[in-house]
Amino acid sequence: MKQLLLGSALALLSLAACASQTADSPKNTANSPLSYVDPLIGTGGHGHTFPGAVVPFGMVQLSPDNPSKGWDWTSGYHYSDDTLLGFSHTHLSGTGVGDMLDLLVMPFRGDYLKRERDDKGRIFTKYSHQGEVAQPGYYALELPAEQVKAELTASARVGVHHYSFSGGQDAQLLLDLGYAQNFDKPVTTFIRVENDHTIVGYRVSTGWAKLQPLYFVAHFNQPFSYQLYQAQKPAKGEQLQAEQSQIVLNFGQPKTAVEAQMALSYTSIAGAKRNLAAETAGKNFAQVKAQAQQAWAAQLGRFAVVDDNKVNKTKFYTALYHSFLAPQLFSDVDGAYLGADGATHTQPGYQRHSLFSLWDTFRALHPLLTLSNPERVDDMVKSMLGFYDETGLLPSWDLMSNETDVMIGYHAVPVIVDAYLKGLTSADPEHLLRAVKASAMQNKFGTDLYRQYGYIPSELELEAVSKTLEYAFDDAAIARLAQAMGKTDDAALFSKRALSYRQLFDSSTGFMRGKTKEGQWVSPFSPTYVAHRTTDYTEANAWQYNFFVPHDVEGMMALYPSEQAFLAKLDELFTTKEKMHGDVSPDITGLIGQYAHGNEPVHHVAYLYAFTSAPEKGQHWLRHIRDTMYKAEPDGLAGNDDVGQMSAWYVFSALGFYPVNPVDDGFVRGLPQFRQVQLSLPGGKSLTIRTEGDLAGTVQSWQLNGQPLGLKVNYQQLMQGGELVFRMSK
Amino acid sequence: MKQLLLGSALALLSLAACASQTADSPKNTANSPLSYVDPLIGTGGHGHTFPGAVVPFGMVQLSPDNPSKGWDWTSGYHYSDDTLLGFSHTHLSGTGVGDMLDLLVMPFRGDYLKRERDDKGRIFTKYSHQGEVAQPGYYALELPAEQVKAELTASARVGVHHYSFSGGQDAQLLLDLGYAQNFDKPVTTFIRVENDHTIVGYRVSTGWAKLQPLYFVAHFNQPFSYQLYQAQKPAKGEQLQAEQSQIVLNFGQPKTAVEAQMALSYTSIAGAKRNLAAETAGKNFAQVKAQAQQAWAAQLGRFAVVDDNKVNKTKFYTALYHSFLAPQLFSDVDGAYLGADGATHTQPGYQRHSLFSLWDTFRALHPLLTLSNPERVDDMVKSMLGFYDETGLLPSWDLMSNETDVMIGYHAVPVIVDAYLKGLTSADPEHLLRAVKASAMQNKFGTDLYRQYGYIPSELELEAVSKTLEYAFDDAAIARLAQAMGKTDDAALFSKRALSYRQLFDSSTGFMRGKTKEGQWVSPFSPTYVAHRTTDYTEANAWQYNFFVPHDVEGMMALYPSEQAFLAKLDELFTTKEKMHGDVSPDITGLIGQYAHGNEPVHHVAYLYAFTSAPEKGQHWLRHIRDTMYKAEPDGLAGNDDVGQMSAWYVFSALGFYPVNPVDDGFVRGLPQFRQVQLSLPGGKSLTIRTEGDLAGTVQSWQLNGQPLGLKVNYQQLMQGGELVFRMSK
Repeated sequence: MKQLLLGSALALLSLAACASQTADSPKNTANSPLSYVDPLIGTGGHGHTFPGAVVPFGMVQLSPDNPSKGWDWTSGYHYSDDTLLGFSHTHLSGTGVGDMLDLLVMPFRGDYLKRERDDKGRIFTKYSHQGEVAQPGYYALELPAEQVKAELTASARVGVHHYSFSGGQDAQLLLDLGYAQNFDKPVTTFIRVENDHTIVGYRVSTGWAKLQPLYFVAHFNQPFSYQLYQAQKPAKGEQLQAEQSQIVLNFGQPKTAVEAQMALSYTSIAGAKRNLAAETAGKNFAQVKAQAQQAWAAQLGRFAVVDDNKVNKTKFYTALYHSFLAPQLFSDVDGAYLGADGATHTQPGYQRHSLFSLWDTFRALHPLLTLSNPERVDDMVKSMLGFYDETGLLPSWDLMSNETDVMIGYHAVPVIVDAYLKGLTSADPEHLLRAVKASAMQNKFGTDLYRQYGYIPSELELEAVSKTLEYAFDDAAIARLAQAMGKTDDAALFSKRALSYRQLFDSSTGFMRGKTKEGQWVSPFSPTYVAHRTTDYTEANAWQYNFFVPHDVEGMMALYPSEQAFLAKLDELFTTKEKMHGDVSPDITGLIGQYAHGNEPVHHVAYLYAFTSAPEKGQHWLRHIRDTMYKAEPDGLAGNDDVGQMSAWYVFSALGFYPVNPVDDGFVRGLPQFRQVQLSLPGGKSLTIRTEGDLAGTVQSWQLNGQPLGLKVNYQQLMQGGELVFRMSK
Repeated sequence: MKQLLLGSALALLSLAACASQTADSPKNTANSPLSYVDPLIGTGGHGHTFPGAVVPFGMVQLSPDNPSKGWDWTSGYHYSDDTLLGFSHTHLSGTGVGDMLDLLVMPFRGDYLKRERDDKGRIFTKYSHQGEVAQPGYYALELPAEQVKAELTASARVGVHHYSFSGGQDAQLLLDLGYAQNFDKPVTTFIRVENDHTIVGYRVSTGWAKLQPLYFVAHFNQPFSYQLYQAQKPAKGEQLQAEQSQIVLNFGQPKTAVEAQMALSYTSIAGAKRNLAAETAGKNFAQVKAQAQQAWAAQLGRFAVVDDNKVNKTKFYTALYHSFLAPQLFSDVDGAYLGADGATHTQPGYQRHSLFSLWDTFRALHPLLTLSNPERVDDMVKSMLGFYDETGLLPSWDLMSNETDVMIGYHAVPVIVDAYLKGLTSADPEHLLRAVKASAMQNKFGTDLYRQYGYIPSELELEAVSKTLEYAFDDAAIARLAQAMGKTDDAALFSKRALSYRQLFDSSTGFMRGKTKEGQWVSPFSPTYVAHRTTDYTEANAWQYNFFVPHDVEGMMALYPSEQAFLAKLDELFTTKEKMHGDVSPDITGLIGQYAHGNEPVHHVAYLYAFTSAPEKGQHWLRHIRDTMYKAEPDGLAGNDDVGQMSAWYVFSALGFYPVNPVDDGFVRGLPQFRQVQLSLPGGKSLTIRTEGDLAGTVQSWQLNGQPLGLKVNYQQLMQGGELVFRMSK
């Protein structure tokens, strides 16, 4: 099933973020990072990634959709499938809930009304992976039954289609605004034919995100005749507003390939037109593709790996690729965006981003972006701050400016505070402090109980242990911000709250355990018991949450009678033969003992060994996780990629360090995977990460620019550049 | 059941449109127009009006809602009911389809969760009409079971509530964003408590109008405690985004009445706040009420009736009142509005209006507004033109910037052309011509067939006769515009199309009759047969459409062998004893023979006698219609008021003339009802309409400023002011 991508990948032209235009096709250069990215990784199994065309952090993800057969189709595509519904313009990467998949385009032949339909009334066609090419910024699929080769690329806000039709039947494209999968359904859609080259319209839908207006303009390189449909019944005229609208465009016998540029906007048709004009107008497919691949070359080229292991390089660059898909650009070229208050905002002074899967991404993805894309962090902070201004709360899980409240914690806080402490945001600190405190002082999700009892009593709120642990972590971040600002009262308050985790440590079992409001441990108690989101733990059992104190690892260790006792507990996590019982959540995958790498709560745990006298044990598990939970094949991710968090874990774990406490508390020493990686840093600096000795061995020591390092290396140290050297021993 | 309003009505202070602020309550002045308005007229029977508080053309209609028992509750309220669900902020006046009813506020006592519920889970309370007062800009209702008197008033964009609670239980208000009736249902709602005096939020719903975002800020005059609910289940915290959200505000034992100001915006919460600040901030209920009633005094005072007949004056001023509810103001104070492209537009340079029930209102309401509110016509024209710019078509039936396509014809055209010919719009004529031609050249609703065949073949399109007749009328308006602009080609084309009605006149039966594409009359044919929107006629039978040629009455008459034959047909319409058969549409009411005054297609027909040698016959029917189809009581309208058209017919028919062809083709002589009416005109001018002789008699002649008039008086003549005198004979 594995597909290596040695096709028409682009040369690494420049590290500059802004790609220049070239009309010629790029040359194949096997050393380009692009040649090591396989967007199909994660599209099998439970990875939930999508294979289509996108630029880094782009608004458009133009990608093929299969008819959903269940949970593993949330991205719209699963590698096991061979049925195509078409190519839609927006996709979620690696989520556990499905949504988006807006604006489906399907090339087809024959009479639309007479085509065979699936059980939901949709036309479809068959394909095989032999006819499929997936690259950063480019996707191609041959559709034999339709006698067409479809090629897709994108700019930030424009999806660009290239259809090479052959054979004698009329070349047709369906644009289906009624198409919806997962929980999404259209509220109202509009299509208007502006002229024989141009369509405009919108699709307002509701689903996981309750309000999703999406506007578009589609411009074609040759004239079409057309027929509108309302819920697949012919509708007269040049335009249609309906819950479900479709249009079929007929290009007759085109002499050249049919190209379409479909620009999106979350604010208006006029916005979509401005986006089209700014990004792709006047360019052909090859030019936009070159532009997209240059953007990826620049983005991925910030990490230059020197190593011979092609599989590891593929895993690494694909992990980087999946780390740079979101948060997505959400504003138009002129800055206008759809706010979390449901209204259009203009000229905010920053580029609005959306799709913050914060319960996942606060851990490693956002810290990775402070290294790889420090210039973009301020926009993300201000996007979350804008969300606070618009709704009174920072986002918890923001999807298209809707709060989905799908996960727990107020994890915008660590991301914001990390950015502040690292000097990456120009936002007013007082504004930031008000925002992070609003989350901590709200009365939802048990935060009121947490304030009242010092922990969340188990009988009063679901997921009480997980929430208590995560709130304590977030509070530590608030304390850090308050301290940095000289707000000693707030610093004291939140420092105290940051220790709340201690209330739930049951020394008799060595577990973080549910407690009643009277202070009794909840019984019966089984650390291997799971049930989906109805216990004291969130998508996990007691084992998987037992070590979630990233902000005070030493304090957590001190709860154990001895370091040996702590190590024994860690060892048991990875080595226990006990199985989970109960109603096992589909999110809990990638098991090593009771360690579940397929979900996020354990992501820092293998690094906890670094805090002990047995760091080599952690390195053992890191190597094992890297080798077994990540593979260079479609079924290559042990669980949902979760909008890049699974991948960002891999990136750090290949570099050799990890942000155990992601709030600017240094990166903890891990295990490097490559002989050398060179990071390009702002100001023309670079950091070379070099491994001396046996890559299959254990880290003996590490040093930065000749100075020995201890447990951690700091962000500011790394950003100065120079050389970080790992010395390995057998 | 009848209720005369002699309460606290306001003195007619000024004819100026802009009311000044006064803090004192207005004095009761029985001669004020307000004292003759009874908003309860039309709330019984099939009138579909609402009784609540509104200012002329206001965005807010704050009015009581009953649980719907069927079609006659489309406005949210029916006089036969005695159950209150609360007071919502938006209402349709006189429509045949229900929608809006957004943002329900209900004062109540006791535990919200334990209250008795209706079959839809809603709390309710009982009331009687003894405790009800309805005036222009003011509505009051006593709710004995809740021990509260509710009083409502409004500015253009703010609903203002005044609740006088008595008794010992806590005073509470429910704000229910999940509440919906008719076809409407919420997509997503948001409530956020900003502080203990202020709530903000939005409600996005879908229904008859597919996309209805509505934003609000509610400010209270005293602090509250609160509890949020999601679908009536308690929800924690200070804010909530959900499909159905509610909030209960508890004011404890208030020392003074609880007042709330709830500002709306169709663009944003920020817009709602700006609207509140501009219109009502810092004013108390009495001040806003005085402001509202001054606005009505100014608006209604443009017509000063001198007559002793209190019932007729009540009918007349209430008809004026119902004529001035829509098109509604739709933009914020800063001009921002929700466009028909679903996006927010700023600074359009005009005040956007919405709710164009054009199939009804092109007939008499819009012509009335050119007399009563010429200063507002340009905003309405530009609103329709904006709709065209946004969607490619002028509105047909615009509800909250959604095209409902509920009725036939392109009747924005006559309204626009009338405004142009009367010199009431500053829009670019070329722009206007493009817009009106786009409607005529579209390919929907049979217009393509109409162009192809010169009429619409019956077997190819529903309502083929009605559409052909109405398109021909609209085309005559286009021809007028083209002619005025010197576009001779367009003028010739559309003048020819304007005669299409002749294709469908079957001289063997004397009816406008369906024809096949081969030119065969459709058989069987019965002029009394009806079926709801599935025949050749729209909400009507052949009788009711037979005379719809307003643009060429003389030409239509010439289709008959003689004037006597034409008169015989007209007489038969009113006097036939034959009954309708088939599936009688509920819209066809107010029957006199086969004349159905409760629906619009006949509205000009009684005036056709004026074109003949027997005008007195028409006057007979006019008097009969005025006396029997309009009554000063709740069940006082013979059919749906249809957003003012039924009422505007009455206004003209009481003044003594009517715009048979509403495209600046003069007002046809009718029958005056009053001894004297003085119209205030722009530039300080006025027109006095005086009746000499027996009001119960027949018009012998009429003259303007001493000059005898013939069949018609022109708009420009009237707008010069002076004296229009009817001379009556027995």
